[in-house]
Amino acid sequence: MQVLLLSGGSGKRLWPLSNEVRSKQFLQVLKSPSGESESMVQRVYRQIREAGITSELTIASNRGQKESLQMQLGSSVNLVLEPERRDTFPAIALACTFLHLKKNVPLDEVVVVLPVDVYADLDYFKTLIEMEKVILNGEADMALMGITPDSPSEKYGYILPEENIRENVIRVKGFSEKPDTARAQMLVDEGAFWNGGVFAFSLGYLLKDEKFLSRCDSFEQRLEDYGQLKKTSFDYEVVEQCDSLAMVPYSGQWKDLGSWNVLTSVIENSPSDTILIEEDFGNTHIINELDIPVLALGTKNMIICSSFDGILVADLDHCSNLKEHAQKLTAKPRREQFLWGSSHIVDITRLPDGTEAPLHRIVVNGGMTSDVLLDNDSSSVLTILFGNGEISIDDEKKEIERGDVLEVAKGVSYRLSAESEMVVLKLPVVP
Amino acid sequence: MQVLLLSGGSGKRLWPLSNEVRSKQFLQVLKSPSGESESMVQRVYRQIREAGITSELTIASNRGQKESLQMQLGSSVNLVLEPERRDTFPAIALACTFLHLKKNVPLDEVVVVLPVDVYADLDYFKTLIEMEKVILNGEADMALMGITPDSPSEKYGYILPEENIRENVIRVKGFSEKPDTARAQMLVDEGAFWNGGVFAFSLGYLLKDEKFLSRCDSFEQRLEDYGQLKKTSFDYEVVEQCDSLAMVPYSGQWKDLGSWNVLTSVIENSPSDTILIEEDFGNTHIINELDIPVLALGTKNMIICSSFDGILVADLDHCSNLKEHAQKLTAKPRREQFLWGSSHIVDITRLPDGTEAPLHRIVVNGGMTSDVLLDNDSSSVLTILFGNGEISIDDEKKEIERGDVLEVAKGVSYRLSAESEMVVLKLPVVP
Repeated sequence: MQVLLLSGGSGKRLWPLSNEVRSKQFLQVLKSPSGESESMVQRVYRQIREAGITSELTIASNRGQKESLQMQLGSSVNLVLEPERRDTFPAIALACTFLHLKKNVPLDEVVVVLPVDVYADLDYFKTLIEMEKVILNGEADMALMGITPDSPSEKYGYILPEENIRENVIRVKGFSEKPDTARAQMLVDEGAFWNGGVFAFSLGYLLKDEKFLSRCDSFEQRLEDYGQLKKTSFDYEVVEQCDSLAMVPYSGQWKDLGSWNVLTSVIENSPSDTILIEEDFGNTHIINELDIPVLALGTKNMIICSSFDGILVADLDHCSNLKEHAQKLTAKPRREQFLWGSSHIVDITRLPDGTEAPLHRIVVNGGMTSDVLLDNDSSSVLTILFGNGEISIDDEKKEIERGDVLEVAKGVSYRLSAESEMVVLKLPVVP
Repeated sequence: MQVLLLSGGSGKRLWPLSNEVRSKQFLQVLKSPSGESESMVQRVYRQIREAGITSELTIASNRGQKESLQMQLGSSVNLVLEPERRDTFPAIALACTFLHLKKNVPLDEVVVVLPVDVYADLDYFKTLIEMEKVILNGEADMALMGITPDSPSEKYGYILPEENIRENVIRVKGFSEKPDTARAQMLVDEGAFWNGGVFAFSLGYLLKDEKFLSRCDSFEQRLEDYGQLKKTSFDYEVVEQCDSLAMVPYSGQWKDLGSWNVLTSVIENSPSDTILIEEDFGNTHIINELDIPVLALGTKNMIICSSFDGILVADLDHCSNLKEHAQKLTAKPRREQFLWGSSHIVDITRLPDGTEAPLHRIVVNGGMTSDVLLDNDSSSVLTILFGNGEISIDDEKKEIERGDVLEVAKGVSYRLSAESEMVVLKLPVVP
């Protein structure tokens, strides 16, 4: 069995925590059973292993998420990165080609596809094993996970069941895309399930016969021709065209943590000396990434979130259009994380002549070398606040240590290598 | 007529805007009729002049407010600064001694005392002139301003009126200190007035006969013996002992802007590209001193205030204990203003070894010289971001200009002089 995780998205539905460079699945706002912070990605990875699935994991994602995925999951997973953003059909096709042609996975092996940002119980992951069995038994060409609905939601597609194939395996009659509430209620009454976007199929079902994909001899060729794959969803292109469909139900917890009202329902306020909630009327949540304190007084049903990108104060029942509102605040994200460390605008001095002098705090992890740094607008002064290592300017290397102050001329590129963790402040000299 | 303004206070009732170094009366959150930002102090000063009072103004205050007062009112007012904080009786006694012995104000001249942070109509200031007349006419030894109550408030002391001396001048029978609501209602029904803390009396009433104050030959002597003056209120020590008291009523607007729910009732949201209020349910106020945006979503009856000292999110009906709550957040104020400019911690890098590296942004106004700057914990690197001038280290002076980067050794004191406005970032080298 091959597990393929889809990691897409990004954006501002969890602004100011999530942004173009920090997708929601990487926010370390959850708690593992051992009490450590973990992200959605890390939680799903942990749960897959806890469910007893020991097979290799492959993540279909895009270039922008490469470093976050490597940072949070290490090098134990395969990453298949889209050369450009398209949709779930081309992303899954690319990853399956990778498994067959790069990893030599045989065509009769089962692939289980699921989203990387699902918030569910361990049973969800055990259900994946049941879905694999349906394919291995030849009971259907494609198995889906059906989520037992707890409300007539308009947000999800519905799977319409036919008769049982056997206990807990149901033949699928058809689908209903995001209905209105009245129709959703009818569907729920008739026993329909939510479509959880989880699929199992044999690798050969997708790859052989050129039914869905033209012939291709190497993964590199598929990568090169990626722009020619249909920009459409896997549901539409493959699942809905399949006439041998089964469904395995799952009735545990199942949440999309992509909005503040859902996310706050699963996280706890962490005690901290920069967060104070007083005269609380209930359900007040504070997430504070700044180094100044936040005081909430007499609040109710509210998310207060401060990051270097901004401050949100929102009633939890009014977060559904957050993305649209936050888009009016068009600032470049101030914090970027890399495998080698991070770079982070901590302050912008606005000068009397209108120019801006951004101050960067750069952290280079011990043993790592930064990407090429280059300031085209101004020369920079670097103050080494902590650690030691070296700086390479052109071909010259120079040892640097705590207390050193260096100037790097405008337009000259350089790299920082840290022996031990290095903290550097970088300021433009004449912005 | 002498006008004596009492400028005391400080603290956290308007946290995070007000703090130990920034008292509420200096916050420039009000608008003058010409649309410019003004503070409570500046508003009162403007209104006194608009009421036609042309006499010299004296402000009784403490050392901590000296620079703020000079910055906001210029050098046109007399400042009498307490050597230590005591109470209103010693503060008024000191200022009256100053007027008589330093300014040669004759003992028969009338002094009118009022708080510097009152928010009232122009009529309030015209009432001061009526109070002066009461003393000049010999109708009483002491005249008070009685504020017509608009509710049976427990927050104020009450003045109990006797018969009219003449139209709008009423003999005072006695006082009732902050009553409970039932008693306050009774007092209001009986025609009592709020005690606004405004007094008029002849200078001699306080100074001659050693009735209140021991003999004193010079202002300097009074200053030196200040610690021996009774630590008590002027109301208690002087007003309530007076048996010839009159009151002049005032029935216009009268507010204490020392809490967010009152302050927000007189200020407007200023349009800004860092403030966005969406899906507003009314009465949401945002004050943002940071350079990141603030988004309020679906909020109601709320103050959101962000400053370099912290972020407050409060229901306006739950601000009465703000001071107590904010005191739990014990951080040193990050912004200090001086006559010569300002110094301001814009970021604190917390290093892996637990030390902190604060980054200061120092602004020196054109033509000014900073106080002595001295870093005892670390040497500092100064980057001149804007402007030009000179730096004096010990007895040596050196010209500096935009783009210069200097290191100043630990324990060495220096001053910055700006020819044109100078912006400097200062960072500890090895914190």
